[in-house]
Amino acid sequence: MLGAAGGIDVARFFTVFAIMLLAGKFAGEAFERLGQPAVMGELLAGILLGAGFLKVIPIGPDDPLTPVFRLLAEVGVVVLLFEIGLETNLKAMMRVGPAATAVAVVGVAVPFGLGFLYWRSGWHGYEHTVADPLTTAIFVGATLTATSVGITARVLKDLQVLHSLEARVILGAAVIDDVIGLVILGVVSGLAAGTAFSLRGALRILGVAVAFLFVALWVGLKLAPRLFGLVDRMRVRGVLVVSAFAFLLLLCVLADRAGTALIIGAFAAGLILSETNQFASIEERIKPVADIFTPIFFLSIGAAVDPRVWNPFVPESHETLAIGGTLLAIAVLGKFASGWAVPWRRFNRPAVGVGMAPRGEVGLIFAQIGLTAGILSNRLFSAILFVVIATTLVTPPLLQWTLRWGATLDQDSVP
Amino acid sequence: MLGAAGGIDVARFFTVFAIMLLAGKFAGEAFERLGQPAVMGELLAGILLGAGFLKVIPIGPDDPLTPVFRLLAEVGVVVLLFEIGLETNLKAMMRVGPAATAVAVVGVAVPFGLGFLYWRSGWHGYEHTVADPLTTAIFVGATLTATSVGITARVLKDLQVLHSLEARVILGAAVIDDVIGLVILGVVSGLAAGTAFSLRGALRILGVAVAFLFVALWVGLKLAPRLFGLVDRMRVRGVLVVSAFAFLLLLCVLADRAGTALIIGAFAAGLILSETNQFASIEERIKPVADIFTPIFFLSIGAAVDPRVWNPFVPESHETLAIGGTLLAIAVLGKFASGWAVPWRRFNRPAVGVGMAPRGEVGLIFAQIGLTAGILSNRLFSAILFVVIATTLVTPPLLQWTLRWGATLDQDSVP
Repeated sequence: MLGAAGGIDVARFFTVFAIMLLAGKFAGEAFERLGQPAVMGELLAGILLGAGFLKVIPIGPDDPLTPVFRLLAEVGVVVLLFEIGLETNLKAMMRVGPAATAVAVVGVAVPFGLGFLYWRSGWHGYEHTVADPLTTAIFVGATLTATSVGITARVLKDLQVLHSLEARVILGAAVIDDVIGLVILGVVSGLAAGTAFSLRGALRILGVAVAFLFVALWVGLKLAPRLFGLVDRMRVRGVLVVSAFAFLLLLCVLADRAGTALIIGAFAAGLILSETNQFASIEERIKPVADIFTPIFFLSIGAAVDPRVWNPFVPESHETLAIGGTLLAIAVLGKFASGWAVPWRRFNRPAVGVGMAPRGEVGLIFAQIGLTAGILSNRLFSAILFVVIATTLVTPPLLQWTLRWGATLDQDSVP
Repeated sequence: MLGAAGGIDVARFFTVFAIMLLAGKFAGEAFERLGQPAVMGELLAGILLGAGFLKVIPIGPDDPLTPVFRLLAEVGVVVLLFEIGLETNLKAMMRVGPAATAVAVVGVAVPFGLGFLYWRSGWHGYEHTVADPLTTAIFVGATLTATSVGITARVLKDLQVLHSLEARVILGAAVIDDVIGLVILGVVSGLAAGTAFSLRGALRILGVAVAFLFVALWVGLKLAPRLFGLVDRMRVRGVLVVSAFAFLLLLCVLADRAGTALIIGAFAAGLILSETNQFASIEERIKPVADIFTPIFFLSIGAAVDPRVWNPFVPESHETLAIGGTLLAIAVLGKFASGWAVPWRRFNRPAVGVGMAPRGEVGLIFAQIGLTAGILSNRLFSAILFVVIATTLVTPPLLQWTLRWGATLDQDSVP
């Protein structure tokens, strides 16, 4: 009846929501027609609507709509991981477990080591003003480690190769990578707060994440078929999609309470429900829900970027670009190496290496913590943002290209 | 990756969201099994989870999640009206236009007149402490006028009688009622701000609402089939549901910008898209989206209620209950009279009279404005809240009962 709800402008919320969805869809369509994954269109639409240009998407801390779109984006990313989990064949995933683990470990170790050494060496010629160089070097290395499973999964989905051996290795490695990312996050958060590094603390975080995944799958695979058998006997409208959606949200919360990442819970929820009898109906009905929420996530990533700090015609940007460029090379080559981490299995190594490249939201979180703690200067933060966005933007076309180029795709399960 | 997004607790948001959806669905299921409409279960689940009891649903002004759920509830009510519009046969609706107008006018005039007279007469024995008695009497009358189309539409939908003659008269009258409600809202907001009543101002608001509906339908019915013909030729995933959803949001915004109600825009959006070739696919794909958002609206209405102010065992509640009871009788009987507003047509008059009874969110908005402006005391506000919630709770069973009792339902279009 009224245009305002408790001080918040409903009409503005609706306008921004509609513009984000339409811009994302039309940009996605344009990219798909150019033979590129649709997600690239959503990211670029986000940049265009974001802080740097049109300022349509709220990201300022004082804007009352900022937390609202942040939460919708969170729903978007967990629904995406849930969909990926639903479409994942758990047994096929298990078979690639050792390969995925090796890829994840190499893909974390190489970028971290190279990034750390680059910073310690002093080649960058950067004057430290805000923190001690050792902590900064650890932070720079850390921001280069975590793969954004969201971006990669979406690209693999857009390209319809989610069931290939390469996709399973990449997704498995990205999830393991997230677990390792949590450990690193725990350590660097400690460093940011001034605590000394502790191997015991790091191992505890690792143990929790692994234990959560195993316990959730163990209990979930036993309970969910019964639970959803009951849901199936209910007759009120929409009970299946609502139950599946609530199951997803609650598993995310459990993951968070257990001390691990929301998206690990989301992926586990999808894996669990993929083994229920109601799987096909759940998948069909969650799709429109994902169509509404998921674009908000990708547009929000784009919106956080202000591309003006990389403007090559402004002298102040040159150092940022030089450091950003070097870090980008390390980030891409470091993950590329992970494709060769598994000498005992045959698959498209460049595709796996490229598939691990995007840093997306996880890199942004690391960079944000470093900035807030005063470990990264604004300029270094911008250089890292450049790496995050560049790895994210180059992955879709490169992945598509490497997938076509070394076509050893092994589609061992029916799409 | 992290459990916090810009100071907002993502895990808590997910928890509340999941609990609201599950509680609403399970309570809805229970009511449906008892032969009652599911929406009653959602309202009661809202009361249970709301301010009065479990305090799970955030409604406090200092809670950062309050505006988030308010906005989700707004999406919920507009998606509901959109669905209703989609399922409405525009031509069949036009045929009931005069009848619906007569029902709406009587349904506004009788409760307003009775409420005003009751308050002016002084029978209530209430001591005025906050405003002059005349303004208060106008406010009391005004809060009794507006039908909550959301509640009634949902009940008619739950009972699967949306295509009956009675349902078309009720829905048409409820929409017209909303237009009249806007006029009254404009007038009482002026009174609240200290402005004198102006017939010209009132007519302007009325003209805008009517003009918006006509222009939106006229332009929309010409443009939408072409627009959605283009959308149909796009191939990116989810483009149809996203376009329909964005169309809905933008029409709501247009309605708001034109100076009328969001829900009038939502209903118009549904009516327009019901005439496109993509109608069936839109309806199928918007359903799961509605299943996620709409319950939040009904649970939020319930959550705003603190039933303790009506506790009959506390002496302070007696005056509130006496006034609330009288106003409830006026509210129900006043709307009941509207069933007899159309002597020239045969339909189930008690069902139409009862269908117009619920006040829901619109009554709450009126009461809120009166309270904030100091025209209604806290106690009078509670009495009006009692009317709002009681009319909402009694409608579903009464409507079902009257529909069965006087079974002159004329199902003239295919469901």
